Amino acid sequence: MNLNKNYENLEQNYLFTTVAKKVQEYVAQNPDKKIIKLGIGDVTRPLCKSVIDAMHRAVDEMAVQETFKGYGPEQGYAFLREAIKKYYQSHGVALKIEEIFVSDGAKSDLGNILDLFDKDNTVLVPDPVYPVYVDTNIMAGRKIIFINANENNEFLPMPDESIQADLIYICSPNNPTGAVYTKSQLKCWVDYANKNNSIILFDSAYEAFIDDEEIPHSIYEIDGSKTCAVEICSFSKTAGFTGTRCGYTIVPMEIPNLNQMWLRRQSTKFNGVPYIVQRGAEAVFSKDGSEEIKQNLRYYQNNAKIISDTLTSCKIWHIGGKHSPYIWLKCPDSMTSWEFFDYLLNNIQVVGTPGAGFGKNGEGFFRLTSFGSEENTLEAMKRFKQLFG
Amino acid sequence: MNLNKNYENLEQNYLFTTVAKKVQEYVAQNPDKKIIKLGIGDVTRPLCKSVIDAMHRAVDEMAVQETFKGYGPEQGYAFLREAIKKYYQSHGVALKIEEIFVSDGAKSDLGNILDLFDKDNTVLVPDPVYPVYVDTNIMAGRKIIFINANENNEFLPMPDESIQADLIYICSPNNPTGAVYTKSQLKCWVDYANKNNSIILFDSAYEAFIDDEEIPHSIYEIDGSKTCAVEICSFSKTAGFTGTRCGYTIVPMEIPNLNQMWLRRQSTKFNGVPYIVQRGAEAVFSKDGSEEIKQNLRYYQNNAKIISDTLTSCKIWHIGGKHSPYIWLKCPDSMTSWEFFDYLLNNIQVVGTPGAGFGKNGEGFFRLTSFGSEENTLEAMKRFKQLFG
Repeated sequence: MNLNKNYENLEQNYLFTTVAKKVQEYVAQNPDKKIIKLGIGDVTRPLCKSVIDAMHRAVDEMAVQETFKGYGPEQGYAFLREAIKKYYQSHGVALKIEEIFVSDGAKSDLGNILDLFDKDNTVLVPDPVYPVYVDTNIMAGRKIIFINANENNEFLPMPDESIQADLIYICSPNNPTGAVYTKSQLKCWVDYANKNNSIILFDSAYEAFIDDEEIPHSIYEIDGSKTCAVEICSFSKTAGFTGTRCGYTIVPMEIPNLNQMWLRRQSTKFNGVPYIVQRGAEAVFSKDGSEEIKQNLRYYQNNAKIISDTLTSCKIWHIGGKHSPYIWLKCPDSMTSWEFFDYLLNNIQVVGTPGAGFGKNGEGFFRLTSFGSEENTLEAMKRFKQLFG
Repeated sequence: MNLNKNYENLEQNYLFTTVAKKVQEYVAQNPDKKIIKLGIGDVTRPLCKSVIDAMHRAVDEMAVQETFKGYGPEQGYAFLREAIKKYYQSHGVALKIEEIFVSDGAKSDLGNILDLFDKDNTVLVPDPVYPVYVDTNIMAGRKIIFINANENNEFLPMPDESIQADLIYICSPNNPTGAVYTKSQLKCWVDYANKNNSIILFDSAYEAFIDDEEIPHSIYEIDGSKTCAVEICSFSKTAGFTGTRCGYTIVPMEIPNLNQMWLRRQSTKFNGVPYIVQRGAEAVFSKDGSEEIKQNLRYYQNNAKIISDTLTSCKIWHIGGKHSPYIWLKCPDSMTSWEFFDYLLNNIQVVGTPGAGFGKNGEGFFRLTSFGSEENTLEAMKRFKQLFG
């Protein structure tokens, strides 16, 4: 028996364990200081009432013979796929129901979709990057090319015609930078992909944070995308489903074979999302549900604005914060990411995430998030002003 | 961009679509006849009270800031892993908590675990077989060797020393045949695997149906298994979780590297099972919960006995029905599987599953299941007696 040797090429990512360790040590030495964590990449607001009510009803259905649900369709129940279809319609995107696959989250599908592609494809990922894009391809032994996202291109790299890439990862609004592509920028990527017979894997997990009609929520708002793009989305950040687990993947019929291959993959290696969770996800799109999740989104958006406004007033270069829960700042005084981490922790007890942990172009940058409480965000920014104002 | 060409080698399995089509046609021509379906491979009894109560409580926790759960550990919450560990202790199996990984079901993990192995491994699967074992390996381009399960070995094939197999699938109690290995038989497989540096993928999804202390629930009841076996189990048939989705996989520390690789795979390509579902699964092991699920299991076991006793009285050769929800019978009068299907449908309106759909050795055999209602099972067997008695 031979193990998959590609796993030997994976690097351990110590980013969050190192952050936790440093904080722990600081707290041990300074038990009287109040730490504020703005590094958190997880939602903190509870599920909205419509979702909770829908899940209670679904649990009750599971208790009674007549309404009990056994195996559901691997690709998701029609009620949820229809709701997703309507949501896309609201952004002017027409999907067929067969193109929509309900999943247990974007992370699973971002990895699993790679099953459909040969090992001998070249993968293009931006740097800095969500580490999952890189690690899943290392596991499969694929060649990875990094494309530079940096201050010059405002962390929105554009296609390089001299590079032949087969699979292209785009996350917009971006994790970790919060940068957001415009329609015309995405059109360049779509044109590149169609010309080069590439597939774009479009991660739209943060689309619900977009607050401007001109910015695309979906790659399918771009002409020509249906022949070259798969879109992976999630209820995690939209509706606080990080611990409830539901997402969806769109595989257009226009890409030859891919939709049928994905259906086959999912029917063989997956057995669908819990009925209870799908009923909860359906409620996100109800009249009340969509209003309720907007309240939570506005809460995070307001935190993001507080952070962004403070950084502006402190003259700290940053992007994100608009259309995104993430704020990506340039460390002042040419500090490295980890120097800045220590500086913040030691001086104002604010914890963020060193950008260097997301790739070499993250060095000298730093990520703050809007997922904390408003109270803590205000207090942290008060301390920022005292330190940098 | 190149697609994974191995998908072209997959065969469409028309088994259940053909069954459905034939039934539909018969009903259209004979609207007055009452069809009884004993082909169903899905549970029908609702979730037990303890599970329902636990899930309601968990939904309520998700509604409140203080008890809301975001991302959980990818490998499952400690409360559930501890409960699984205790369950194994009750069968005399000592596990470390780090060896237990909570999953969204056996089907997912049976496919996903293959990520850890090189393409160049030879896979041994019994014929007849649960099609997922075959298709997941075809997708990866692995060489598959079939080992004959048939009347001579009572559908319990034993190792053949002349074959070098790297990955070995064993499902006991078996789907589709209901055959169950004894400890001494499994010991032969464990010895073969250790001698040949093979990994046994042990599918124990039906272990809860075992009704005899001498029959192993887990491969880890066999000496030497911890150096060669991964066990994949599920709450689907144990507690009616087919639509609720939870299972677990055991990867022993004694197999070099494998546990760490699986942890890395799951941390990268999976984000855990819904908190609500894990609380439901935990309740399966509570004092009340384990008694309640036994009531459902006894209901199915009683149906299986009704079927088995009837076949015995009709002098129809069969296995399973004991320690299994499946009854695997030899078609009378040398009928083929599909001839017998038509014969039952046309004469007594009972629907089962043609054995030929599970592999070439299934030809001439037929699967009935105990997942129907007691009333329907009794009525179907009354009709059997009239036809064959």
